Amino acid sequence: MAVFAHPEATETAFYRAFEQGDLEGMMAVWAPSSDIRCIHPLGGLLTGVAAIRASWNAIFRAQLPQRFEIERLSVFHADELVIHTVTETIVLPLQRQRFAPLLATNAYRRIDGSWHMVLHHASPVGGVETAEVVPFEGGETNATRH
Amino acid sequence: MAVFAHPEATETAFYRAFEQGDLEGMMAVWAPSSDIRCIHPLGGLLTGVAAIRASWNAIFRAQLPQRFEIERLSVFHADELVIHTVTETIVLPLQRQRFAPLLATNAYRRIDGSWHMVLHHASPVGGVETAEVVPFEGGETNATRH
Repeated sequence: MAVFAHPEATETAFYRAFEQGDLEGMMAVWAPSSDIRCIHPLGGLLTGVAAIRASWNAIFRAQLPQRFEIERLSVFHADELVIHTVTETIVLPLQRQRFAPLLATNAYRRIDGSWHMVLHHASPVGGVETAEVVPFEGGETNATRH
Repeated sequence: MAVFAHPEATETAFYRAFEQGDLEGMMAVWAPSSDIRCIHPLGGLLTGVAAIRASWNAIFRAQLPQRFEIERLSVFHADELVIHTVTETIVLPLQRQRFAPLLATNAYRRIDGSWHMVLHHASPVGGVETAEVVPFEGGETNATRH
């Protein structure tokens, strides 16, 4: 099993797996536990490894090449449990487009010395606008701008 | 300052204040801290007491008499930090209507022996459908049904 020494490493691995459509990498991030919870944007509550794995499999099958820009806005931490709130901005490099940022609450639990995701709750800001994409404003170098 | 012996008491007080449009009761639930975070459905991230208080004030000014049905679906806990995921079903008794359930992630931190809310992240399931309400199906006794 993958070992993540701190929650930031887990979060990095989460978004890398998401970008790459890497189902095994994604599931290595999550705690192998029946009580993990995932809420995709505007989605219902998914519980447990099988349901969450199936959801990522469906997402990755439909996914265009994409890149995430993550900004960590908030951290609450206890010894064994950490909560991050981040903005997720999805960029489609081939289309030279970026989505409006989403907000996500990510929680990580320490299990046998390794931090694993136990909760991912993502939501759009402003609703239907999240379906819209805006072109890069000034060329490729802007793609990494926050 | 209000003292909440456990996170369930804090959560009960949160939804009671929400139902009653009780701004002081609502703010007594929250940690008196600059790092508290609130995401209303489809809203952006609010940070700190002043911004969060202002948001509840605006909500309560526009709010019709309403009642919450809360179902707690998930709990993650550490010594000083607890995360609940709940469904929030808003019922408008005078209109005999109920909204589609929302999902919320609520986090509580223990501060000097009292549990206070530090994060509220609520989101609709299915997007615009949350603007729709459905009538009670069989009369007043169904109002408490989950």
